[in-house]
Amino acid sequence: MTRNSCGTSRITGCQFTLFPMSDKFVDIILGSLDEVDTSKVWKDTDDVSTCVRGKMVHVFDVVKALFLHAAKTGEHVAMSGTFSIGCPGDTEANSYMDETDTPLNEAKSSDITQEAGCKFSLYPMGREDYMDAIYEQIDLSKQRGVEVSHAHYATRLDGDVKDIFRAMVQSFDSVQQKVSHVIMSFTISANSPSNKT
Amino acid sequence: MTRNSCGTSRITGCQFTLFPMSDKFVDIILGSLDEVDTSKVWKDTDDVSTCVRGKMVHVFDVVKALFLHAAKTGEHVAMSGTFSIGCPGDTEANSYMDETDTPLNEAKSSDITQEAGCKFSLYPMGREDYMDAIYEQIDLSKQRGVEVSHAHYATRLDGDVKDIFRAMVQSFDSVQQKVSHVIMSFTISANSPSNKT
Repeated sequence: MTRNSCGTSRITGCQFTLFPMSDKFVDIILGSLDEVDTSKVWKDTDDVSTCVRGKMVHVFDVVKALFLHAAKTGEHVAMSGTFSIGCPGDTEANSYMDETDTPLNEAKSSDITQEAGCKFSLYPMGREDYMDAIYEQIDLSKQRGVEVSHAHYATRLDGDVKDIFRAMVQSFDSVQQKVSHVIMSFTISANSPSNKT
Repeated sequence: MTRNSCGTSRITGCQFTLFPMSDKFVDIILGSLDEVDTSKVWKDTDDVSTCVRGKMVHVFDVVKALFLHAAKTGEHVAMSGTFSIGCPGDTEANSYMDETDTPLNEAKSSDITQEAGCKFSLYPMGREDYMDAIYEQIDLSKQRGVEVSHAHYATRLDGDVKDIFRAMVQSFDSVQQKVSHVIMSFTISANSPSNKT
């Protein structure tokens, strides 16, 4: 494994799993994959999770689109995952970093209106002042058209899925401009019978 | 919010979600909760996730037991979550830190035999040499009776659920003895129709 020095690798990656709480989970997962164009990201799937890697814009585009297309079935679906950028252990190989910046799924995704709840946590790595970056970011999130609340170990976002992802992208992007290696974990849930709205 | 200085707070917490891929997801979740004694941890649940907090032994005991009791239904179930210890933003309140060390669910859990696959990642916070702690830990995991493999951004463990959790506890515990604030994210999956065994 090649270890790049900090700052040379700006591959974004996401390990995530889509969880349809339904007997039709296989059809929902495969149906979502059919609707999403993943050709601008490297992708690998096993029985635990899927990993996509490439430019930040395309990694978020694909993850958001997969969740939206699964949620629009009306079934209770959730997704958990971890975004990573600048990992010193990541390799340049398989990185699809030469793709253009136009997201492939934005137009189709933008037609889907879907409310959700999401908890996410940002972890700036390798810095003694990491808590400052976290607290700054929690403050910033308040201005982005989603309802923001604080949970233990996480920030909760409620609103339209596209607005939730926009807030997460902006948080992740602003921290990674200051800190080389950033991790962001999230769990997003839609159509839950126990949600509050 | 009270912010404790590093090292004074040794509350362990876990934000996690149980995902039964079944129309009976409500019954499976409530049934698991019925079988698990959570009286030694602080617990809060909303429509996105559940948070448990307290002593490390009890937090892992409860999370493992909930997964085991859900998986023994034979349905495809998964769980994603994030363990945290030593968070400078965590509070002593609601922490159940005076409980004795005897885990309440160990005996009942040990009767359940369940294979699973799991991906986990350790994030030692606030340290410039954090990658060394991660690589050391990945090496250690190889000796614990579970099959260990490497995935992008994560270490994969395959084996019995109890052995998987034992490896995760040992990894988490050994890093937190050296690093004040440690995060560990995981996704574990059982009874998947697409697993390889």
